[in-house]
Amino acid sequence: MKISVKVPATTANIGPGFDSFGMALPLYNIVTIEETVLGGVEIELLSRDDEIQDLHLPADDTNIIFRAIEQLYACVGQVPSAIKVTIDTSIPIAKGLGSSASVIVGALIAANELLGKPADLDALLSIANEVEGHPDNTTPAFLGGFCISSVEEDGSIKYCKLDWPEDWKLTLCIPDFELSTNISRSVLPEKVEREDAVFNIRRAAMLVHAIHTEDSELMKVAMEDKLHQPYRIRFVPGLTDVIEELKNFDNVLGVALSGAGPSILVITSGSNIDKIKDVIRTTWERYSVRAELTTFDIDTNGAEILAR
Amino acid sequence: MKISVKVPATTANIGPGFDSFGMALPLYNIVTIEETVLGGVEIELLSRDDEIQDLHLPADDTNIIFRAIEQLYACVGQVPSAIKVTIDTSIPIAKGLGSSASVIVGALIAANELLGKPADLDALLSIANEVEGHPDNTTPAFLGGFCISSVEEDGSIKYCKLDWPEDWKLTLCIPDFELSTNISRSVLPEKVEREDAVFNIRRAAMLVHAIHTEDSELMKVAMEDKLHQPYRIRFVPGLTDVIEELKNFDNVLGVALSGAGPSILVITSGSNIDKIKDVIRTTWERYSVRAELTTFDIDTNGAEILAR
Repeated sequence: MKISVKVPATTANIGPGFDSFGMALPLYNIVTIEETVLGGVEIELLSRDDEIQDLHLPADDTNIIFRAIEQLYACVGQVPSAIKVTIDTSIPIAKGLGSSASVIVGALIAANELLGKPADLDALLSIANEVEGHPDNTTPAFLGGFCISSVEEDGSIKYCKLDWPEDWKLTLCIPDFELSTNISRSVLPEKVEREDAVFNIRRAAMLVHAIHTEDSELMKVAMEDKLHQPYRIRFVPGLTDVIEELKNFDNVLGVALSGAGPSILVITSGSNIDKIKDVIRTTWERYSVRAELTTFDIDTNGAEILAR
Repeated sequence: MKISVKVPATTANIGPGFDSFGMALPLYNIVTIEETVLGGVEIELLSRDDEIQDLHLPADDTNIIFRAIEQLYACVGQVPSAIKVTIDTSIPIAKGLGSSASVIVGALIAANELLGKPADLDALLSIANEVEGHPDNTTPAFLGGFCISSVEEDGSIKYCKLDWPEDWKLTLCIPDFELSTNISRSVLPEKVEREDAVFNIRRAAMLVHAIHTEDSELMKVAMEDKLHQPYRIRFVPGLTDVIEELKNFDNVLGVALSGAGPSILVITSGSNIDKIKDVIRTTWERYSVRAELTTFDIDTNGAEILAR
């Protein structure tokens, strides 16, 4: 038996929603699990994209895929053996696009199918969080759309999925360097100013209202952050200038680090996106940063089992 | 000339929305400003309620009313003189119900009328915040409804007003003791755990989504707070027990300190409210706290100029 699952990339944090907000992007990894005749769990990485052929799957990811599958099997009193996990990647690694979350989610859904669906969505969300630790990525990877996620004391995940305004486009800017989530996370202080926490609470609440009311002007205010972006901005040369330049565009609703970076998410309404991309490219060139810029609609479906 | 303005009480914070969320309640102060023949600004307090006849308007409030009026007059290059401010109070003082905000908002609107409306709403919101410092109270006092408010770097107030679900009732529990906002605020640390900030960001975002979707189950999750209630709960004897007892009611959507306390706001859906009030009363009696309990619909109109 062989199960393939297509899982979207995700962009997390999204302005004020540090460790809380996440969105799915139409850029996919395909995770396939098949039973083998040999014992053990084998994990293999494929890439159809020549340019990322040289990307390796980090050892950490290999471990957490294994741990996720192991935990799922443990739910039904089994240990995984004689399966092969193949990951066909299109989501760049270490770019702040939820590549780890996508492979975990794909492996969990595929393994769950293989076992006859012992776990429901809530259980899978919970296992994914336990091994990956970023529900803001794993929830939209499962569900698609814009999600608010929270880890409860009992380890369960509370979440909401919001309808994203059709007119709001997502331009993903992936620079030509990697940034480890661990390094990017290590610069965040354990304690924050109460005033900064309040700043983000207000913005996060306004952002949810802006999405519901499709209020572009409010969204511009709501996208600001004081909890992670100010600490991480130094890891992305030129980002301050990019943000400054994009203030000249009335239809730019927000510029945010995607996850822990280094990719940037630019939210726009209406047209004029090519001009915006030119400005980002030109500004980054001054810092010798080359970037791949792509404009997407949000992915609304989330992970899907492919026809067998 | 004589202008009277009716201004609602407000309950601020509301679970995770520390310094951010506020709601207007149908309990009003009436602020009247009239021109006098004598020089200077005179401030007088009236109360139609015998039981609160002995309440004094705190000296601080007198000062901030004067300062608010002074600032408004300064906008048109004048200094206030020869006016009398009368405050007919029905909002209890020092109970966490925005009584200061209500008199400031009333005085500003009345004085602005008297001057021929030189200031627009944005300017009035900004002056109110400058003298009172709680936009989470002053915004809903102006506008009514459920508001998210934020003070921007330039001193302007950004706000949103949300439609509150009709079925969600507000039970206000006012205990028979006062609590100074200054004392209640002094116990809050300047720095908070990043994890607690994230907890509240998630909850605040979910709370806005719960209001938009009228999702009572989500509201129950969203009403939790880690930024102020845990520090202040000791100022309200028995509150921990009240919260615990109310967990037995499926239609209690949240229990929160109103503003800096000591009043409590209980949000419910559906019926069964009398039973809930009995439980609150009985639980508090064990701590020798007597309380006035009233169930309201939200005030949706905010401050109103009364017919002259």
